[in-house]
Amino acid sequence: MSFRSAVFEKEQIKLGDTEEWIVRGGRHLFARLPEALKGVGQIGVIGWSSQAPAQAQNFRESLEGSAIRVKVGLRAGSPSWSAAEAVGFTTANGTLGEMYDVIAQSDLVLLLISDAAQVENYDKIIAALRPGATLGLSHGFLLAHLDSAGKSFPPNINVIGVCPKGMGRSVRRLYEQGRDVNGAGINCSFAVHQDIDGRATDQALAWAVAIGSPCTFETTLTQEYKSDIMGERGILLGAVHGISESLYRWFRSQGMEADDAFLESARSVTAAISKKISQGGLLGVYQSLNPQDQKLFEKAYIASYGPAADLLHEIYDEVESGNEVRSVVSAARRLERFPMHEIADTEMWQVARHPKTNREAGVNPVTAGIYVATMMAQADLLREKGHPYSEIVNESIIEAVDSLNPYMDYRDVAYMVDNCSTTARLGARKWAPRFDYAVTQTVLPTMDHGASSGPAPALFRDFLDSDLHQALSVCLALRPPVEIAVLG
Amino acid sequence: MSFRSAVFEKEQIKLGDTEEWIVRGGRHLFARLPEALKGVGQIGVIGWSSQAPAQAQNFRESLEGSAIRVKVGLRAGSPSWSAAEAVGFTTANGTLGEMYDVIAQSDLVLLLISDAAQVENYDKIIAALRPGATLGLSHGFLLAHLDSAGKSFPPNINVIGVCPKGMGRSVRRLYEQGRDVNGAGINCSFAVHQDIDGRATDQALAWAVAIGSPCTFETTLTQEYKSDIMGERGILLGAVHGISESLYRWFRSQGMEADDAFLESARSVTAAISKKISQGGLLGVYQSLNPQDQKLFEKAYIASYGPAADLLHEIYDEVESGNEVRSVVSAARRLERFPMHEIADTEMWQVARHPKTNREAGVNPVTAGIYVATMMAQADLLREKGHPYSEIVNESIIEAVDSLNPYMDYRDVAYMVDNCSTTARLGARKWAPRFDYAVTQTVLPTMDHGASSGPAPALFRDFLDSDLHQALSVCLALRPPVEIAVLG
Repeated sequence: MSFRSAVFEKEQIKLGDTEEWIVRGGRHLFARLPEALKGVGQIGVIGWSSQAPAQAQNFRESLEGSAIRVKVGLRAGSPSWSAAEAVGFTTANGTLGEMYDVIAQSDLVLLLISDAAQVENYDKIIAALRPGATLGLSHGFLLAHLDSAGKSFPPNINVIGVCPKGMGRSVRRLYEQGRDVNGAGINCSFAVHQDIDGRATDQALAWAVAIGSPCTFETTLTQEYKSDIMGERGILLGAVHGISESLYRWFRSQGMEADDAFLESARSVTAAISKKISQGGLLGVYQSLNPQDQKLFEKAYIASYGPAADLLHEIYDEVESGNEVRSVVSAARRLERFPMHEIADTEMWQVARHPKTNREAGVNPVTAGIYVATMMAQADLLREKGHPYSEIVNESIIEAVDSLNPYMDYRDVAYMVDNCSTTARLGARKWAPRFDYAVTQTVLPTMDHGASSGPAPALFRDFLDSDLHQALSVCLALRPPVEIAVLG
Repeated sequence: MSFRSAVFEKEQIKLGDTEEWIVRGGRHLFARLPEALKGVGQIGVIGWSSQAPAQAQNFRESLEGSAIRVKVGLRAGSPSWSAAEAVGFTTANGTLGEMYDVIAQSDLVLLLISDAAQVENYDKIIAALRPGATLGLSHGFLLAHLDSAGKSFPPNINVIGVCPKGMGRSVRRLYEQGRDVNGAGINCSFAVHQDIDGRATDQALAWAVAIGSPCTFETTLTQEYKSDIMGERGILLGAVHGISESLYRWFRSQGMEADDAFLESARSVTAAISKKISQGGLLGVYQSLNPQDQKLFEKAYIASYGPAADLLHEIYDEVESGNEVRSVVSAARRLERFPMHEIADTEMWQVARHPKTNREAGVNPVTAGIYVATMMAQADLLREKGHPYSEIVNESIIEAVDSLNPYMDYRDVAYMVDNCSTTARLGARKWAPRFDYAVTQTVLPTMDHGASSGPAPALFRDFLDSDLHQALSVCLALRPPVEIAVLG
C-alpha cells in the first residue's frame, strides 16, 4: 500500500521486513486543512457517544479561522442535545441540528453513532447523503455488516475511515495537551474505501491531522474491521478476561489466598506485565525475569501458543465470514427480552473491589508466559493474514498495554467488560469463556505434565527471533510523549 | 401437519394442546414394505459409521424375501470395506460397491456419511443421483448447510428424512431384540422435504418401519435440524457439560471433597436425576424431594431459567441464521492445523476416572433445579418456535435421560464430548463454557443473594402447570419396552 497526498508529506518507516508510509501530524499543519478539504463547506459529526464529542471539538478547533463549519447532528429528542450545547454546538449558532438534516447538508459526514444504530438506520442515512459527499467512519463495523449481508456502499460517495487508537476521551484530552506538548494526540489509522473524485485520501489525512493524530498509518477498512473486531474478542478483552478467570482459580486451587490469586492473575497482567511491555516490549518481560522464572515463562508460553492460536484463528474466521457481525446484530435484537447481566458477581471481582492488601502486583512468570503467548499468537495471525505491522502492533499490543489494561487496572477487567460498547461486550462474553477453557483444559494440564517435547524449542526460538520486536519498538517510539490512559 | 399414506395406518395422539399423527411399526408390517417402496429396485446405503451399519442390516433383514436389494456404498479404499463384508455386504454377492456407483444405481439412497463428508462431496453426490430418485437423510445437517449457503436440492429428486432417536448401535440392538420383544426398536421422526411423484411419504414411512421404529412422528427437515443441532449444543451435551463444570467447582469451593463434588454435580445429573425423569417426568424429580430440598430446587430453578433461556435463544438464532453450520464447516477446515485437544485432563474428569468412593449419586436439589430449568427452557423455546411436541420431548428430554445421560454415566461427560460426531463435538466445546459462565456468573450469585422477588413465583408456577408434562408422559408411554442405552 502506498497512498498519494497533494497536501501532506509522507515518510517511510521500516517495520520488520516491510515498509510502510506514515504522515506525521501537528498543529503547524492545521493551516493546510482547508486545502486538503477543498470543496467541503460543512462537516457533519453524527452522534454524541464516545468519539463524537472529542472529534467534533477537535475538528472545530483545528479549523478555527477557516470557512468550514463543523456541525453536530443528533436524533430528535436525543438526551445528548444539552451536552453538545454545553460545549458550544448550538442550534442558535447553527452548529447543531437533527441528524438527517445535518447529513443532507454536509459534504463530509463523520458517522460516529453506535454500531447497532449504524446498522439499524443504514438505509435512511444513505438516502440522506448528498451524491458526491464523503462518508467517514471511525471503525469498520458498518462495512463488516454490509459484507455479511452481501451489500455494499452506494457508488456515488467517497467512503473513508479514520480510526483513533484510543478512547474518545483520550482523543480529546491529548489534543488539549497538544497545545503545550508537541506531539501529544492519539495515533490513527486511515483507510480509503471508495474514492470517486480523487479527494478521499486528502480528506482522510486532513481528518486525522485535525483531530490531533501525531502519526497516521494506512490500512483498508476491511483489514481495520477484521483486526478490530477480532482484537477485542482476543487479547484486548476476551482473552485477558478468560485467562484471568482461569488463572485465578488455578492459583486458588494451589492454596493461594484470594487477594494473592487476584494479584498474580488479572492484576499481574493489567499492572506489571503491561508496564513492562510498554517500556521494553515483549522481550522486556522475559528479560526482566530471573533464570528460574524464565524457565516457567517459557514453559507457559510453549503450552499456550497453540491453544491461543487455535481460538484466535476461529475468531478471525468468524469475523471474516460475517458470522460474528450477524451474531452481534441478532444478539442486539434479543437484548430487550434478555438484558445482559453483569459478570462481576463472582468471587474474583468481589475480591478485586474489596482488597485486603495493598501489595502491588509483580510479573508472575506463568501469567506472563500465557499472556505474551496469546499476544504473539494474535500478532502472528494478523501478519499471516496480511495486515500491516502498524495495525498489528497497535491493535494487538499498544492499545492493550497503553490504553485498555491501565484502565482495567484502575477499575477492573469485569468493570471494563460490563461497560464497553455493545459489540465489544457481546464479543467478550462470547469468547472469554473459550479462552478460560483453553487455559484450564489444555494449557495448565500440559504444563503439569511437564511435556516440553516436539516443536517446543522452535516455538520459543520463533518468539525470541520474531520481527515483531523491531516493529513494536519502532511503533512504540512513534507514540505520543504523554500518558494515553485516562484514569478517573 | 398431517400426512397421507396409502399403505400404513396413522393414529392420532394428543400432546398438550396439540394433536399429532403417528404411525406404529412392527414386524407384521414388513410384508407391506414392497408396496410402500413400489418402483424401488435398489436401496443404496452410503457410509459405514454410526447409523449405516445398523440401518443397512435392519433394512436388508426387513426386506428378506422381496425383490428389493440393499447395497452398501463406500469410498474406494475405505477401511470400512471389511467391516461391511463381515456382515454379508460383499462385492461377491453384489451388495457392496463404490459409493458413487451405488448412488447412481439406486432408487432410494440413504446418505449416512458424516456431516463434513456430505458437505464436501455434495456436488458429486447430486451429480451421481438418478433423476427421480429419492435422497434419504437421517439428520437435517445437509439441508442446514444448503440453507446457510443460499442453495437448495435439485428439483428432480425426492428428499426425505428418517431420524432415529438413538445411536446407530441402539438402532441395531433393539431391532434384534424386536424379534422376541414386541415393540422393541428406536422411535424415529420422519420428514418429507421434496415429493415430486407422490411417493415420498410412503417411502419415508417404509424406511422407518423397516429399520424397526415402533412409533414414527412427523416433522420437517428444517425443524429437525434446528432442534437437533440446537439440542446437542444445549441440554444434550453443551449444557450438561457446562453446568457440571460450574457446579463441581462450586461444591469444591464450599469445602466438599473431590469425589463428593463430582457425585453431586455431573453424576447427579447423569444417574439419579435422569432416572427420575425417565420414570416420573420432570415433576417427578421435584416431587421426590423433601420440602426443604424442594425449596432449594425451586430457588435454583428460578435463578436458572432466564440465563438458560437467554443462551438457548442465542444458539437457536445462530442455527437458524446458518452461522452455526458455517462455523462447523469452517472449523472442520482448521482441524488439520489445529486438531481438537481432549477436555478430560481437568481435575473433575480425573476424579471421575479414579473414584475413591463407591457411594451412588442422589438427586442434588440445586443441581436438579438448574438442570431441569435448562431442560424446560429448551422445551419452551422449541414450543415457541413451532416445533411439534413429539420432537420437543424426544430432542430435549427422552434422548437425554434414556440415551445420552446413561452413556455419560457409564463413561463420563468428558468422554462423550471427546468421542461424539465432529459437529456435536465442536458444538459442545463452543457452548459448554457459555453455560458454565452463565451458572457461575449469574445463577449461583443470584441464589446466594437469596433474591426471590419479581416474576419468580409465576415462573415456577409455569413449570408446575406446563402442558409439557402431559406431552412427556404420552411420549414416555410410546417408548420401546426395553432399555435404549447401550452401556458397554
